[in-house]
Amino acid sequence: APGTLQQRKPPGVRASVVCRSWGLRPRAGRGFHTASSSFQEVMLTSERYRVQRLPFSRVSDSDVAFLERMMPGRVITNPEELKPFNVDWLKSVRGCSKLMLKPQTTAEVSQVLRYCYERNLAVNPQGGNTGLVGGSVPVFDEIILSTALMNRIISFDKVSGILVCQAGCILEKLNEYLEEQGFVMPLDLGAKGSCHIGGNVATNAGGLRLLRYGSLRGTVLGLEVVLADGSALDCLTSLRKDNTGYDLKQLFIGSEGTLGVITAVSILCPQKPKAVNLAFLGCWSFTKVLETFTTCRAMLGEILSAYEFMDEKCMGLVEKHLKLSSPVTGSPFYVLIETSGSSSTHDEEKLNNFLEQAMTSGLVTDGTVATDDKKIKASTWFIWISLVHQALWSLRERITEALTHDGYVYKYDISLPVGKLYDLVTDTRARLGRSAKNVVGYGHLGDGNLHLNITAESYSHSLLDAIEPFVYEWTARYNGSISAEHGLGFKKKQFIQYSKPNEAIFLMQRFKAILDPKGILNPYKMLPSSS
Amino acid sequence: APGTLQQRKPPGVRASVVCRSWGLRPRAGRGFHTASSSFQEVMLTSERYRVQRLPFSRVSDSDVAFLERMMPGRVITNPEELKPFNVDWLKSVRGCSKLMLKPQTTAEVSQVLRYCYERNLAVNPQGGNTGLVGGSVPVFDEIILSTALMNRIISFDKVSGILVCQAGCILEKLNEYLEEQGFVMPLDLGAKGSCHIGGNVATNAGGLRLLRYGSLRGTVLGLEVVLADGSALDCLTSLRKDNTGYDLKQLFIGSEGTLGVITAVSILCPQKPKAVNLAFLGCWSFTKVLETFTTCRAMLGEILSAYEFMDEKCMGLVEKHLKLSSPVTGSPFYVLIETSGSSSTHDEEKLNNFLEQAMTSGLVTDGTVATDDKKIKASTWFIWISLVHQALWSLRERITEALTHDGYVYKYDISLPVGKLYDLVTDTRARLGRSAKNVVGYGHLGDGNLHLNITAESYSHSLLDAIEPFVYEWTARYNGSISAEHGLGFKKKQFIQYSKPNEAIFLMQRFKAILDPKGILNPYKMLPSSS
Repeated sequence: APGTLQQRKPPGVRASVVCRSWGLRPRAGRGFHTASSSFQEVMLTSERYRVQRLPFSRVSDSDVAFLERMMPGRVITNPEELKPFNVDWLKSVRGCSKLMLKPQTTAEVSQVLRYCYERNLAVNPQGGNTGLVGGSVPVFDEIILSTALMNRIISFDKVSGILVCQAGCILEKLNEYLEEQGFVMPLDLGAKGSCHIGGNVATNAGGLRLLRYGSLRGTVLGLEVVLADGSALDCLTSLRKDNTGYDLKQLFIGSEGTLGVITAVSILCPQKPKAVNLAFLGCWSFTKVLETFTTCRAMLGEILSAYEFMDEKCMGLVEKHLKLSSPVTGSPFYVLIETSGSSSTHDEEKLNNFLEQAMTSGLVTDGTVATDDKKIKASTWFIWISLVHQALWSLRERITEALTHDGYVYKYDISLPVGKLYDLVTDTRARLGRSAKNVVGYGHLGDGNLHLNITAESYSHSLLDAIEPFVYEWTARYNGSISAEHGLGFKKKQFIQYSKPNEAIFLMQRFKAILDPKGILNPYKMLPSSS
Repeated sequence: APGTLQQRKPPGVRASVVCRSWGLRPRAGRGFHTASSSFQEVMLTSERYRVQRLPFSRVSDSDVAFLERMMPGRVITNPEELKPFNVDWLKSVRGCSKLMLKPQTTAEVSQVLRYCYERNLAVNPQGGNTGLVGGSVPVFDEIILSTALMNRIISFDKVSGILVCQAGCILEKLNEYLEEQGFVMPLDLGAKGSCHIGGNVATNAGGLRLLRYGSLRGTVLGLEVVLADGSALDCLTSLRKDNTGYDLKQLFIGSEGTLGVITAVSILCPQKPKAVNLAFLGCWSFTKVLETFTTCRAMLGEILSAYEFMDEKCMGLVEKHLKLSSPVTGSPFYVLIETSGSSSTHDEEKLNNFLEQAMTSGLVTDGTVATDDKKIKASTWFIWISLVHQALWSLRERITEALTHDGYVYKYDISLPVGKLYDLVTDTRARLGRSAKNVVGYGHLGDGNLHLNITAESYSHSLLDAIEPFVYEWTARYNGSISAEHGLGFKKKQFIQYSKPNEAIFLMQRFKAILDPKGILNPYKMLPSSS
């Protein structure tokens, strides 16, 4: 019974009984893609945004016949079947592609692109279609090039921890595979159950483990990429260090499918931590959230693996729409702290010392701790603790899902100096007043990354005009980034100048022109068109 | 007295008395540049390598007069004064530049390059001139553009740990500055006392802390760069996450001054570890070195911060030429293990558990431990322990210096799958037989990085022909890299194809042509000339 769950708590922490009445659902990841957001008819992107189709060729019957000969049975033209791949997960943008291809090998991707390049057919590379900026779906009738069938693990080396796999492998599947061998993926994010590693790399996904294992720019060791003209670029090395020439793969990390199609990835994976502990705490103010971060970084040091925060409005939405309940209530802010380390005894001691300090100095008001005590060997304990961890993480990871149930969502993914992070939420809330339903803030505080979300009953031009460019101007004033980890995709590309100088944008356009002279790869995305 | 030095040793470790009779010199860093290698007259690079000067303009009196007006007193033309900047630290290559400029600001670098670009004058950007592949000195009469006076710290933020500074700051100075504020630089290398951070970034330096803090590709957050035509590219952001467009700064990291001149750097610095421990161990075979690595990675986990190895020949050279003596002797291989963590008690316990395991299972034969015991507060202890740490590190860090005293040095910096690492040394030794004086291997085993060095009484074409391309072919056979961290510079550029496919080299040449259409920046370096 839940009541028997052993509590590890330092003196002073008024821990609620963990697991009381929580909705112990699978973590967000698994159900991510199937979780139905409240349905709304999405307008064609081209209609809403009044964007012009560029003069690419249109897919002809002979194109379909040719491609069908190239990969029999893996050419999709059925409009019903194509529907979910034409709309993004948020149901915010919709294209009208009439053709999806499912290559299995790099050679097939090469053949497809060589053909499309020759024929001047535009292509939309697509992974798990979990992107949040409209980058992963066509804008018009671009051919969808899906990595869904490129899901083979090529090799894993247990000495070095280096995994080589095809681009279409699902993040969670890779992590499960690695866990069996005592390793984990260096990234983790809410969409893990659907997103493809190739898409993660193409958007330079951040997520929950960045604080500990750093960005993909450090952990991705090699890439195999097919360029617009079909030529393959083999930079798929498995070396931690290689200083022979410019690091070309870096251009493709975060290029959102505009420079080439990533077909395989070599990535350095850390060892699976032997002990993982979670603390879920309440704070009276954002200032206390920041002080708690400084204190825990100093006291937990190398074992700190996540420091996430959410405001009370987030908690309210998760409770209301997903029926999850929190063991800690009544605070305006909540933080989720995770430690990952190699000794449960040492880690627990560090965590308890920190919690004692945080309580006695009034940094946190309430908290729950779930420690992964290896001394208790009973298998039921393992099941329980893993459910408790999942439940605690759900409160944070399923905010995105809860928001989609609240109405139309205006999403902003902002990097700011950490001290200014929440001011943007309060300023936006004040500005929008009653024209917004909810204005909430949460995110990866340890990385200076705020997710600002605004909900309304439905999409409205006037509300959008009240938010943009206000949010971008505000961000630029404090030298922040208007996209910390989601990318620019379709919906944010015209705002790039708030975070990048003109000379940089100009150079990007030149690189795009070199690598994709006809502009067939993911057109209308990421960069303002060069003129 | 040395004898009173407290030993922390686990049962079973036959620790020698630390500090017995060691030459307790300052660490290699400080004295790096002044340490005189055995002098040899260096031939002009162009003579030895029979390379042709490209048709750049020659520096005229009116050029000098113009530049002197631009930066009075910071234009060097005195041949004696120029001498050390025309020769690399190894005294292996020599140019004949007649002009060195010492700008203080980015604006001055812009002005200089705008002028040189206009006049078609070639430029050799130079930091601390500590490079090992002939990349940091002119080949002919290129103008030396020194960052020596660009040594200002621009800002440091104690909450985020982000340092912004000019490119000419010396690595060790930055580290000292940060240590006062409770932080450290994320990289450390033997040349720390002379090398500039801009040069470190331009060569994508690896070094001793990469195992723990990752490569510069993850820790460098922003760069300011002046392009060949004098235009400045401001990517000097201080954000951990920024996904707005292609990550242009990555192109300049590791570009060895061929794409632009780095003028300022923004870098994420970790907190200074509260406890640092060292273990110096002897192993009976390279297999044991590998097994010890696997064991220590599993048992030390997140606190492991360095795993370095050296063979007995390295030890012999350090003893012979630098009069250092080791507390552990008589083994064919030695490893230096460093832990850095936030709790001296926990770290010591982990280290002792590992050492006990390593001794009882016969992985190591002998060892010395120097733990940083904060319980002993006496200031003399701190001085002692810091000297012991320096002395232990010297054995590893000063190998480079010892080698220069052994004669002419053929240096190779190879990445390989860790299991194959030492086979290259034994195969090379067997191949060269008595034609080499010494063939030694050491390096950053934890990163799969071998430093293979061959010494001889003097330079000889025939010995070079016996080594190259043998070493490169061997490396390519096992999918290694012919430059793990030193770069290609002048001496290795013609071998790039052993580690990079033609399509990649071709793309690099195109990027070079876009960013530096006249090819004035560090010509004759890194890339084979496009034809």
